[in-house]
Amino acid sequence: MKLRYGMVGGGQGSFIGAAHRRSINLDGQAELVCGSFSRDYENTLKTGEELGLPKDRLYKTYGEMAKAEAKREDGIDFVVVVTPNASHFEICKAFLEAGIHVACDKPLAVTAKQARELVALAKKKGLLFLVTYTYMGHVTAKHAARIIASGQIGRVRAVMAEYPQGWLADEHSDGGKQGSWRIDPAQSGGVNCLGDLGTHVENAVATMTGLKIKRLLAKLDVVVPGRVLDDNDYVMVEYEGGATGLYWTSQVAIGHDNSLRVRIYGESGSIQWFQEEPEKITVIGKDGSLTEHHRGYPTIAPDAAKYGRLPSGHPEGWLEAMANLYLSFMQCLRAKKDGSFKSDMIDYPTVEDGAAGIEFVEACLRSAKSGNVWVDVP
Amino acid sequence: MKLRYGMVGGGQGSFIGAAHRRSINLDGQAELVCGSFSRDYENTLKTGEELGLPKDRLYKTYGEMAKAEAKREDGIDFVVVVTPNASHFEICKAFLEAGIHVACDKPLAVTAKQARELVALAKKKGLLFLVTYTYMGHVTAKHAARIIASGQIGRVRAVMAEYPQGWLADEHSDGGKQGSWRIDPAQSGGVNCLGDLGTHVENAVATMTGLKIKRLLAKLDVVVPGRVLDDNDYVMVEYEGGATGLYWTSQVAIGHDNSLRVRIYGESGSIQWFQEEPEKITVIGKDGSLTEHHRGYPTIAPDAAKYGRLPSGHPEGWLEAMANLYLSFMQCLRAKKDGSFKSDMIDYPTVEDGAAGIEFVEACLRSAKSGNVWVDVP
Amino acid sequence: MKLRYGMVGGGQGSFIGAAHRRSINLDGQAELVCGSFSRDYENTLKTGEELGLPKDRLYKTYGEMAKAEAKREDGIDFVVVVTPNASHFEICKAFLEAGIHVACDKPLAVTAKQARELVALAKKKGLLFLVTYTYMGHVTAKHAARIIASGQIGRVRAVMAEYPQGWLADEHSDGGKQGSWRIDPAQSGGVNCLGDLGTHVENAVATMTGLKIKRLLAKLDVVVPGRVLDDNDYVMVEYEGGATGLYWTSQVAIGHDNSLRVRIYGESGSIQWFQEEPEKITVIGKDGSLTEHHRGYPTIAPDAAKYGRLPSGHPEGWLEAMANLYLSFMQCLRAKKDGSFKSDMIDYPTVEDGAAGIEFVEACLRSAKSGNVWVDVP
Amino acid sequence: MKLRYGMVGGGQGSFIGAAHRRSINLDGQAELVCGSFSRDYENTLKTGEELGLPKDRLYKTYGEMAKAEAKREDGIDFVVVVTPNASHFEICKAFLEAGIHVACDKPLAVTAKQARELVALAKKKGLLFLVTYTYMGHVTAKHAARIIASGQIGRVRAVMAEYPQGWLADEHSDGGKQGSWRIDPAQSGGVNCLGDLGTHVENAVATMTGLKIKRLLAKLDVVVPGRVLDDNDYVMVEYEGGATGLYWTSQVAIGHDNSLRVRIYGESGSIQWFQEEPEKITVIGKDGSLTEHHRGYPTIAPDAAKYGRLPSGHPEGWLEAMANLYLSFMQCLRAKKDGSFKSDMIDYPTVEDGAAGIEFVEACLRSAKSGNVWVDVP
Repeated sequence: MKLRYGMVGGGQGSFIGAAHRRSINLDGQAELVCGSFSRDYENTLKTGEELGLPKDRLYKTYGEMAKAEAKREDGIDFVVVVTPNASHFEICKAFLEAGIHVACDKPLAVTAKQARELVALAKKKGLLFLVTYTYMGHVTAKHAARIIASGQIGRVRAVMAEYPQGWLADEHSDGGKQGSWRIDPAQSGGVNCLGDLGTHVENAVATMTGLKIKRLLAKLDVVVPGRVLDDNDYVMVEYEGGATGLYWTSQVAIGHDNSLRVRIYGESGSIQWFQEEPEKITVIGKDGSLTEHHRGYPTIAPDAAKYGRLPSGHPEGWLEAMANLYLSFMQCLRAKKDGSFKSDMIDYPTVEDGAAGIEFVEACLRSAKSGNVWVDVP
Repeated sequence: MKLRYGMVGGGQGSFIGAAHRRSINLDGQAELVCGSFSRDYENTLKTGEELGLPKDRLYKTYGEMAKAEAKREDGIDFVVVVTPNASHFEICKAFLEAGIHVACDKPLAVTAKQARELVALAKKKGLLFLVTYTYMGHVTAKHAARIIASGQIGRVRAVMAEYPQGWLADEHSDGGKQGSWRIDPAQSGGVNCLGDLGTHVENAVATMTGLKIKRLLAKLDVVVPGRVLDDNDYVMVEYEGGATGLYWTSQVAIGHDNSLRVRIYGESGSIQWFQEEPEKITVIGKDGSLTEHHRGYPTIAPDAAKYGRLPSGHPEGWLEAMANLYLSFMQCLRAKKDGSFKSDMIDYPTVEDGAAGIEFVEACLRSAKSGNVWVDVP
Repeated sequence: MKLRYGMVGGGQGSFIGAAHRRSINLDGQAELVCGSFSRDYENTLKTGEELGLPKDRLYKTYGEMAKAEAKREDGIDFVVVVTPNASHFEICKAFLEAGIHVACDKPLAVTAKQARELVALAKKKGLLFLVTYTYMGHVTAKHAARIIASGQIGRVRAVMAEYPQGWLADEHSDGGKQGSWRIDPAQSGGVNCLGDLGTHVENAVATMTGLKIKRLLAKLDVVVPGRVLDDNDYVMVEYEGGATGLYWTSQVAIGHDNSLRVRIYGESGSIQWFQEEPEKITVIGKDGSLTEHHRGYPTIAPDAAKYGRLPSGHPEGWLEAMANLYLSFMQCLRAKKDGSFKSDMIDYPTVEDGAAGIEFVEACLRSAKSGNVWVDVP
Repeated sequence: MKLRYGMVGGGQGSFIGAAHRRSINLDGQAELVCGSFSRDYENTLKTGEELGLPKDRLYKTYGEMAKAEAKREDGIDFVVVVTPNASHFEICKAFLEAGIHVACDKPLAVTAKQARELVALAKKKGLLFLVTYTYMGHVTAKHAARIIASGQIGRVRAVMAEYPQGWLADEHSDGGKQGSWRIDPAQSGGVNCLGDLGTHVENAVATMTGLKIKRLLAKLDVVVPGRVLDDNDYVMVEYEGGATGLYWTSQVAIGHDNSLRVRIYGESGSIQWFQEEPEKITVIGKDGSLTEHHRGYPTIAPDAAKYGRLPSGHPEGWLEAMANLYLSFMQCLRAKKDGSFKSDMIDYPTVEDGAAGIEFVEACLRSAKSGNVWVDVP
């Protein structure tokens, strides 16, 4: 049986909503049955029609949707929240309160207080909560986490992680629909580049290494004249246990698209992973020789490899990574339904991971506002 | 309204059937409604159940399916044929005769005679026929064709094209389910590597350059002891107009996955395109400097760029390429239905392209059997 | 006529001395005529014999050599100083005082006070002073400086520069002869990684961008247990005019050899340069497309291109880069001799550049010792 | 004691003569003492003066030089021949007859008959004969030969080798001084691209694999209108023992500089080597994972590694490769002088290797002229 889901956000003109739908379509395990795609009800109606949805399940507000779907016998199994950042909190809260499992785009919320509230609420209600840090769905990203956990490169000593983009380099560019709300403080929650890209960096490093940030020192800059929010950020990091890291995120780095790159240096080896070339991972041994492993090779850890859909050399990409997150989320959801769920089945970023991202952002803001000093991360 | 389609082949254990279904799912424009997934009816039943199909549309044979679906008012708009090569001809023929549009995996058929018959039949019936040379669906492959057609690199002088794989390098390996029928003459039609990979090379070069092969000289070798069919092939090519080419395909080239690489050298520039890195294309100008263009950049030709679903730097892959073929095929199909179809709407490989592949293979066989001499290609 | 030079340091077992001699040999414009190759006179004698030098020009001490050569009519035109860091100052000072031009390996000195004294002394004496920041001799590095100066990428906004190595990752390794003195405070001057690699980073960025560091914030860490000096360093930088930078140097980054990489982001384009692939430079335009230029191409700035010795595609390397520094140094030296010297003839790193490196190091130390705070750079 | 050498060819305006001198200078083991640098004596005089040679050792003809130097007590130990191809034979013969060891640029001669005569003469006279196939001096090329000989990748099955260039793509270009004689039949010996580049390909494959070509089939084309000699060549090869190969050489392939690339596929692994990135070699194991080894790593075979002059990550290039050939040649030469020479000391391409190149070229010509048929290679 297919699961049923609804969507908040993702109306006409939205990239991310269509992307989530495509990813879920990929494996055909869930069906979109309702939505409140826009604050503009006309947009919701048009989007719903285009998607072949019945008009009675096209809702004017997310609140109405949460209540109505919770009451239906054929109501949704989960909601997908793909609105601008500032509204994530209220929407997720409404669906959790209605007893509906949630998948929400990152960043989870605007303040750490909100994020903690969502963590507590999901726990209290016993609901599943996926935060779609897409990149961590890649087989190679999962493999990185597996081999670091296995001790193959020894204790991690240093991490270099960056996520530069170039699309907001021009001062006359508002970056189109995708860009405008990001650089508007009201909609984005006071940070732009760090909230959008820094949270990906934080999550990627945490997921791969398992390291917890102890304290950090951040410098958040506005590079393009006339802009209010940060567009180029540097962060020094100290992890519990003594390893350190250096993060860079930017939206003014011409020549980069979505260049999330993570390099992890251990006592006896290191790892290089690059989001734009997700089909491979480079592992370096003590003798310095670099070995490139491709998705689909027998050298890939089985519980990472199992997510592959195509033979190696037939590239999988971003949609597959997103779909992998949903695969695990939906597997857990079915297990919830049939009573077989156990927490170690979770192989996707949770509301806790989402909250860690917001704690990271708030700590960076505190550091930057205090003149780039060290601040502890809760 | 979604289109309806059925599938022949693609039962449990088949990679390619699931891949076609995933690609079509991606855009949600067509729905699988029936199938004859295997010669083993039990497999068909299980596959159909897994896919949520009603039992009365799970057919014992493709012939039964063609007839039954042609009669139904809600019958399929098109069939997808994903069986081993040797059966393509009979199956496609049956559906064409039943008046149903066809999408068939490549290679189109086993003999050129068969291929020509399919070309004639599709024409006579006025039916659309997609041959799924997947790689040509990539935005960058389309861009290559556009800029060569525009004259940007001048008249083409030489083409280097190769498609090496390494998965059949081991003599004790039959390559699993995907491999075994390929190296069995009865199922593959007398060629293995050339039929499987050589047709991709031929099609990629023809699609990008528009060149027609005039004559060729081929050397088809069996490298792995105990194997009957070719697993390493070299072909010299002369095109009409004087350009030349060199093709290499192999299944014993350890270190390669699906390494289709095409390099095209013109009078005033050249192009390098690599299937395993489909998000970029390298264009070289007269001054020797190499410029890398990514999918999603403003420098990509608009009628290639339009197929992109994600921003640059969020990798699209093989499934998207396949989906792009279906997008154009389905657009033409809708146009057929509403009477607006024109032949220049076709932006996918047709039965004629499929037939050209078989002519290429037969010419290579003639050359090889005659001691590697030049033979004309019809 | 060939110039005559002598060498201090570079005895048997020294890598860097032989490397300087090879570089100078490359163009055959200068001849080694004397030396004080080691504090161990036996080593000096053996090295001198091996190099075919007369015994009366093999000196027990550099002081003796400076005095003796200054008196000879056929005395040296310049001295090459390739001893461990801590002795650079005294040796360079001795030769400057003797009126002899100096080429000294980097870092120039141990303290900024020493460095400033050498700057003043060279100026007072009117002597040329090359500091061999080898990498800046590469044609592509020179090209980077030329096109940034030309405004091609607009005002520089951000700089990412790193120089990781992995050779000191192992705690039981002292890195051989080359390594041991570097991690010994007495010989290296209180910094290891930063003095050795950080000065290269500082110089590369300064040379390419022309930017002057206004203030910086540094974190210098000891990663490998038992080590006294830094082996992994992070530095945040603010330049005069508002651009910022992030530097990373490491000796524990397994998988890196001499990975000096500089990425410079401007208002309308960017540049990527990598020391280990010095034959190319990547320039990115506003449209995001990456263009790779090779040494030897007509697109390379003429006054950078002129240093090329081989056609493009015949790799030049580190020795050629070093030789290029000496070429300009020797051209200036001949011009000094014949009275035609003008300061704009200088196309090599000078004692001022060397001093800037030491100021950078000292500022980093001040910042690190004060708990990673911002400090001004003189 | 330094060895003494003379040079024939390499006058002002010659690239290759200066390159040989630079390579020999690199290690300072031999000194240029005489020359006949050009058929134009004025050029010889100017070149000699520039190089600081005494006028009495600047010879009007190579014949005069061979005789005079053979008589002198301080006569040359070896001659370096760097003239256009067509004159190699006569010049080498003259010096061999005078009892002088020879280093000659490739290709060795114009006809196989000439080449065989030189082989016989060198043998009869007991003289050493280096043919400067430069690329085989690279540490990584030597490593490739070592590990293939060790059986690491199993029996070789297939070889893909290519050497494309783009510098003669333009019909109005004669390629400057370096190009003009190459495309002039009188000076080049009837082949251009194949003689210049094909011999490199033949030698690289033979050196790395140890395979002997049994028969071949060649297609030699003139692509650029108005040209007389080949500028784009395809060759199919069968080696003794059953392996096969495919070679491509071109001078019209825009985007390539000196792109000699050799890929060798064995039963249990493969190797990829690229002349333009000579500091690394990629070795692929049975599991498909690609491992990149850099010059200077402990994984490099010791008798290849010993030629390295710099630490890994400090690029060595073309001059070092050439210098490595001379190093072994000069070591043998010293051993000849002191009576310790044994033939297994030879680690450079010999006159036999040079002759194999000419046999290859003649066989290709025979095949091409007969309509691209298989011909045996002696």
